[in-house]
Amino acid sequence: MSALPPLNRRDGRPTLAIVGATGAVGTVMLDILSTRTDVWGDIRLIASPRSAGKKLRVRGEELEVVALSEEAFEGVDIAMFDVPDEVSAQWAPVAAAKGAVAVDNSGAFRMDADVPLVVPEVNPDQAKNRPRGIISNPNCTTLSMIVALGALHREYTLRELVVSSYQAASGAGQPGVDALREQIAKVAGDTTLGTQAGDVRRVIGDTGPFPAPLALNVVPWAGSLKDGGWSSEELKVRNESRKILGLPGLRVNATCVRVPVVTTHSLTVHAVFESEVDQARAQAVLAEAPGVVLCDDPANYEFPTPADVVGTDPTWVGRVRRSLDDPNALDLFLCGDNLRKGAALNTAQIAELVAEEFTER
Amino acid sequence: MSALPPLNRRDGRPTLAIVGATGAVGTVMLDILSTRTDVWGDIRLIASPRSAGKKLRVRGEELEVVALSEEAFEGVDIAMFDVPDEVSAQWAPVAAAKGAVAVDNSGAFRMDADVPLVVPEVNPDQAKNRPRGIISNPNCTTLSMIVALGALHREYTLRELVVSSYQAASGAGQPGVDALREQIAKVAGDTTLGTQAGDVRRVIGDTGPFPAPLALNVVPWAGSLKDGGWSSEELKVRNESRKILGLPGLRVNATCVRVPVVTTHSLTVHAVFESEVDQARAQAVLAEAPGVVLCDDPANYEFPTPADVVGTDPTWVGRVRRSLDDPNALDLFLCGDNLRKGAALNTAQIAELVAEEFTER
Ligand SMILES: NC(=O)c1ccc[n+]([C@@H]2O[C@H](COP(=O)([O-])OP(=O)(O)OC[C@H]3O[C@@H](n4cnc5c(N)ncnc54)[C@H](OP(=O)(O)O)[C@@H]3O)[C@@H](O)[C@H]2O)c1
Ligand SMILES: NC(=O)c1ccc[n+]([C@@H]2O[C@H](COP(=O)([O-])OP(=O)(O)OC[C@H]3O[C@@H](n4cnc5c(N)ncnc54)[C@H](OP(=O)(O)O)[C@@H]3O)[C@@H](O)[C@H]2O)c1
Repeated sequence: MSALPPLNRRDGRPTLAIVGATGAVGTVMLDILSTRTDVWGDIRLIASPRSAGKKLRVRGEELEVVALSEEAFEGVDIAMFDVPDEVSAQWAPVAAAKGAVAVDNSGAFRMDADVPLVVPEVNPDQAKNRPRGIISNPNCTTLSMIVALGALHREYTLRELVVSSYQAASGAGQPGVDALREQIAKVAGDTTLGTQAGDVRRVIGDTGPFPAPLALNVVPWAGSLKDGGWSSEELKVRNESRKILGLPGLRVNATCVRVPVVTTHSLTVHAVFESEVDQARAQAVLAEAPGVVLCDDPANYEFPTPADVVGTDPTWVGRVRRSLDDPNALDLFLCGDNLRKGAALNTAQIAELVAEEFTER
Repeated sequence: MSALPPLNRRDGRPTLAIVGATGAVGTVMLDILSTRTDVWGDIRLIASPRSAGKKLRVRGEELEVVALSEEAFEGVDIAMFDVPDEVSAQWAPVAAAKGAVAVDNSGAFRMDADVPLVVPEVNPDQAKNRPRGIISNPNCTTLSMIVALGALHREYTLRELVVSSYQAASGAGQPGVDALREQIAKVAGDTTLGTQAGDVRRVIGDTGPFPAPLALNVVPWAGSLKDGGWSSEELKVRNESRKILGLPGLRVNATCVRVPVVTTHSLTVHAVFESEVDQARAQAVLAEAPGVVLCDDPANYEFPTPADVVGTDPTWVGRVRRSLDDPNALDLFLCGDNLRKGAALNTAQIAELVAEEFTER
């Protein structure tokens, strides 16, 4: 294990550790931290012993990656965790015990009653209510819709959500992206594929991390099997939406489907509110909401699509329609980059919220 | 114009005309008629004057295509129309005036109060109630779900549907399929595409019949713009479901989205019923329903996907779950081949229903 580089606190600004700096989310995090207003003193990059000694760039500086250990949290004020669930489960409490605030991107603590689940545009105050010294970042599918729904909830009060997802391959990490690209290369150029049952499956062979071919197909499955035939991903959308919005009785039924898109999750949402809605007012609420872009002019074919949204920060909303049956219901189509707002960006925003406490001191 | 080949009624069986025999749906129709129990006497193939004289195979025979004209319906008992709306609007009444029963696959007559909209597994009796001598075939998106929903409706009585579609390129005809294949060829092999806003759009250029790239993307639009921001396709799902099920007050909100699949539409459905539902009973109802295949064992990754369903006749249903909030609601995922049951097959089934009247005489 290499010796820890010394921490040089700059201007009394807080020190940040990024655990999992070498991963898919960690890589986007370094990119995001290099472009946002810099609130950080020192930054320490942490990963597995496999990556120790590796050099990565952030904020224009080259930093050495250190192996995860108790000492790695020495002097750290805020520690982001972009690592698998079991690594977070073990190490976020260690960071907290060393006095750092842990901001965790994994699923390890999201439903822990003593860990807030924070989306800065929706429930920023919850970031201060962290008895375990840990704050959780929601799942990417929930994050791709919740900023827009939070804005509508403030206006109309949510009662029920029916959600269908169009989830990108990168939600299954880099192996998902690699599998999709390989599959597309295999089906390209063949002008008969997709016309006979099983023909795509035969040409693709190994389906990678997905339970069926993804090229020229859609796959109604993400996550693991839970009671009643629900997938873990569908229950995350339900449980996390309830927790973030502070609505434990919110009715939520989701069906999660993977589509052949690299990055950016899309969702259709049928949202029922306590009060009557109005199309123009709902559009105005969304247009004004921080973190949301309204893209809704179907007469000019303007609606969000993953190809136009990927790589951007906001939640994009279009196809805003008032239900034809229920004056209290809206139907929407939303897109959000699952690696940015869906993961690294929201974690960075939470860490910046906590950083304000340090500068306020 | 070539002279009409003589009609030789075989065994007194009815004579069938296929108007639009050279088109995408017409081609599948010839294939379907060649494999189903043969109830037909003579078959006459009709298309535009451009195709007159062309020879096509059906039931192992080679037949000459004749140009559409009033005389072309001479001696015809049942005339299927697989042509654009405006051609059906003009010519189906002509066929009816000549004494044929017109079975129309276009959108021209679907919502006409004097034209029944028939799905043989759901409302076969309506086929006899045809004051104009015309019977309509539903839109492919509605047809991809309605047989399964009809079975559940008979058991539990439908009250509300929230539908999201994952529609295939061939719903936009052969130009849609060609555009998707060209786009996939353009994006294949590039390992950076789909990671920056607009990169896929730039490589694809012309998006063909779709309002945005379809490869590596999903597009929340199908049809034309109607009041309130709804698309014509979304209103078809609503209005046709109500008419077929005989439920003018059924609550239906749909969001229609195109996905990069060649053929076979998929749908998620949140269905609310008048009575309490049970997952196992609902699965049994679907498993027993004619025209439906239950494919629902997520523990073994068994659920329908377009790649496995394309080219088959039934409506496939999986992911059957009882709502976690409402004991009267089910969530489902369905797939149906939009060119078979979604178009040609259902038309053939309607025509066969009418043919029974001839043999009963
Ligand atoms: N992909 C998404 O859309 C998404 C969205 C939201 C949340 N998340 C969550 O974010 C977390 C990271 O996901 P990812 O896609 O970035 O995964 P990833 O690409 O596999 O990266 C995993 C990171 O964790 C590190 N790591 C693994 N085992 C470790 C150990 N024992 N000790 C220390 N470091 C270890 C790896 O370091 P080495 O490089 O040294 O192995 C790497 O930096 C996961 O919990 C995931 O569920 C992902
Ligand atoms: N594609 C689908 O998923 C789908 C599903 C359900 C229903 N439909 C409906 O089915 C109908 C046919 O669709 P398609 O996709 O098969 O269209 P298509 O491939 O464009 O075929 C059109 C057919 O109509 C004929 N035709 C066109 N103009 C004509 C005219 N003036 N007189 C006589 N014949 C004429 C064409 O004959 P020539 O070859 O001689 O031009 C051809 O046989 C449309 O109403 C469509 O909306 C399509």
